[in-house]
Amino acid sequence: MVEIITIGDELLIGQVIDTNSAWMGRELNLAGFDVQRITSVSDKKEEIEEALISAAKRAKIVLMTGGLGPTRDDITKKTLCEFFNTRLVFNDQVFKDIQEFLRGRVKNINDLNREQAMVPEKCQVIRNARGTAPIMWFDYNDSVVVSMPGVPSEMKIAMSGSIIPRLKDKYTPGHIFHKTVLVHNIPEAVLAEMLSHWEDNLPKHIKLAYLPAPGRIRLRLSGRGDDLNLIKTGIDKAVDALRPIIGNNIYGEEDLSASEVFASFFKNTGKSISLAESCSGGYLAHLITSIPGSSKYFEGSLVTYSNKMKQQLLGVKPEDIQEFGAVSEPVVEQMALGALKATGSDYAIATSGIAGPEGGTEQKPVGTVWMAWAGPGKKVVSKVFRFGKDRERNIVRTGETALIELMQRIKEGVL
Amino acid sequence: MVEIITIGDELLIGQVIDTNSAWMGRELNLAGFDVQRITSVSDKKEEIEEALISAAKRAKIVLMTGGLGPTRDDITKKTLCEFFNTRLVFNDQVFKDIQEFLRGRVKNINDLNREQAMVPEKCQVIRNARGTAPIMWFDYNDSVVVSMPGVPSEMKIAMSGSIIPRLKDKYTPGHIFHKTVLVHNIPEAVLAEMLSHWEDNLPKHIKLAYLPAPGRIRLRLSGRGDDLNLIKTGIDKAVDALRPIIGNNIYGEEDLSASEVFASFFKNTGKSISLAESCSGGYLAHLITSIPGSSKYFEGSLVTYSNKMKQQLLGVKPEDIQEFGAVSEPVVEQMALGALKATGSDYAIATSGIAGPEGGTEQKPVGTVWMAWAGPGKKVVSKVFRFGKDRERNIVRTGETALIELMQRIKEGVL
Repeated sequence: MVEIITIGDELLIGQVIDTNSAWMGRELNLAGFDVQRITSVSDKKEEIEEALISAAKRAKIVLMTGGLGPTRDDITKKTLCEFFNTRLVFNDQVFKDIQEFLRGRVKNINDLNREQAMVPEKCQVIRNARGTAPIMWFDYNDSVVVSMPGVPSEMKIAMSGSIIPRLKDKYTPGHIFHKTVLVHNIPEAVLAEMLSHWEDNLPKHIKLAYLPAPGRIRLRLSGRGDDLNLIKTGIDKAVDALRPIIGNNIYGEEDLSASEVFASFFKNTGKSISLAESCSGGYLAHLITSIPGSSKYFEGSLVTYSNKMKQQLLGVKPEDIQEFGAVSEPVVEQMALGALKATGSDYAIATSGIAGPEGGTEQKPVGTVWMAWAGPGKKVVSKVFRFGKDRERNIVRTGETALIELMQRIKEGVL
Repeated sequence: MVEIITIGDELLIGQVIDTNSAWMGRELNLAGFDVQRITSVSDKKEEIEEALISAAKRAKIVLMTGGLGPTRDDITKKTLCEFFNTRLVFNDQVFKDIQEFLRGRVKNINDLNREQAMVPEKCQVIRNARGTAPIMWFDYNDSVVVSMPGVPSEMKIAMSGSIIPRLKDKYTPGHIFHKTVLVHNIPEAVLAEMLSHWEDNLPKHIKLAYLPAPGRIRLRLSGRGDDLNLIKTGIDKAVDALRPIIGNNIYGEEDLSASEVFASFFKNTGKSISLAESCSGGYLAHLITSIPGSSKYFEGSLVTYSNKMKQQLLGVKPEDIQEFGAVSEPVVEQMALGALKATGSDYAIATSGIAGPEGGTEQKPVGTVWMAWAGPGKKVVSKVFRFGKDRERNIVRTGETALIELMQRIKEGVL
């Protein structure tokens, strides 16, 4: 029903990752619209044209992002004029909006800004609340083409505020319902075998997908149809049957990131948390603080990258670093207890590992990560993990695993 | 010349962001191959088929990722069999590789793993060094179709180790050369006007693109042709003419992230750095530590999210927090000096701001961020920024701006 076209050379040569289409896909899906294809093309006129023509053949709704900035590499508007057999006209309202937007931001409105107020005669203009590029909505037959800027914040406001509501008015999408179950610590093939029988018994209108992420798998159940209650009941029954099969390795039942699950777990406990980070290097703190309201339970993190800092700020014993190395059980446990002491928080997490690519040894290869979790009464537990060779992935896995495992230990009463 | 097809429902409903195609685009481009289109389709057979057929019509090289996992939502192999009019056969070598790979990871090889050893008869199998899904290379006429797993680490090893070298052998791509100039603190339309005359004088074979990122713009010059020296000389001349126009707002001349520029600046100075983070919440430390070898110059970060921590760990005066608020010049300067003192580093950066969405006031709206930079002799300078309303964007801008501004102050001799 929907196709998305993202425009820009920068997407094709990999200088920019296309995050817009994923966001749009998610929002459209929640609104009951199916995205059937995403196409990224260059700023070349013939490429945009070809993509638009073939998308419009397949899909009723074509949403385009990008190619609308004030600079010269943008030719989307001209292509739209040709497609709709129309011409560019100066739009007073758009120009007023641009002037308003730029007031206080730039000294003078320049020619390029003025050109942005030129829009195809046949389109309806949707106002851009966050930038200077107008959003253009074209109705034709029973179809719609919308062109919007590629700047994520501008696109998002336009989609949520105007485009999705208008699409809902114009089309009445069918019901769609997703439920995502978050699983960790089970490899994909093992999980697939565990679930084989259960999967065979899923009703036909419910679809299952495995979405692997570093160290985790999200199981997504999707149902579609006219009766939303029927779909929901079917999915709820399926999840009820799933729980005893996977047990404790389920750490959430909403499509949330590890930090979102953590935030919703912690925010009502009245407890506080602090961190002592070595190999996660601030990423664990970032995971926690990326969630609004985290200041309610997060005291802070001591990112002690050097051994000197581990000793000075966390009170790790130099002789233990000497004897066992910084990546070791005694050191990581002292780090966690040191964070409790330095911050006075209820819980603490510590990480110390070899993220790579350098620094591995035979006994402690790259990917070796010690974690410790400390709680009330100076109780502390720790565990070693063997992740992979990729630095970025090791940092991400360390962060997410540390959060999930702390929640499990609290739930199990270990801490 | 190249089209990329990424397969998976999860891409269309936005549960996973397609980072693979950006990575592939970058690597192919460096190797002289142009990606002309990226298409993301669902796991449905007819969708994969249609995308493959039309891509193969337009492009000599079609690279497919995804749809090859051990679970049931994968049907890519069957589609390939139909496209190439062939059948699945059991491949001993692939099965041996799978057994080898899974040794020690799972107790038993299961049926799903065994099925992964079934490959189309007409393809050449490229071994997967990092997983169980085989990589399939199909030659036909003068064209190539390659199917590889969607797991980024598996795809990357296959691309760098086998696929790109083979493509270079089969085709001799033309020369392509890019140069990226990193600019900050100038809005896009203003920059475009500044560069208008310079841009008009660019040679025809050199193309310019503006790539905006939060608070920064990357200007990419691309040249293409048979004579690499000629292209490079042309681009060098253009950049020579560009420098005096933009001046100090250029902070780098390689296509590097802010943290990479920072790393290459700092690693040879013999100086060390520490952080005192409030609103950046560990992200600044993560930016620094995401670069291998950062332990040479990075001592650590005191992520002092609560006011209590600012006082306890950094010695910020409670009366100043009381009088001026945590987001203020005196507090952020005390934080930077406190980090210097606590860690003994040569330089320190401090951040304190309102990331949002809550916590803004009329005087200090969401997006207000104070930063301070401290250096030898307890010298400290600070500056206030007004970013936007988006929390994630504010955190990213804070981190990148803080790094760029420290380098500028050191270069200018202010610190």
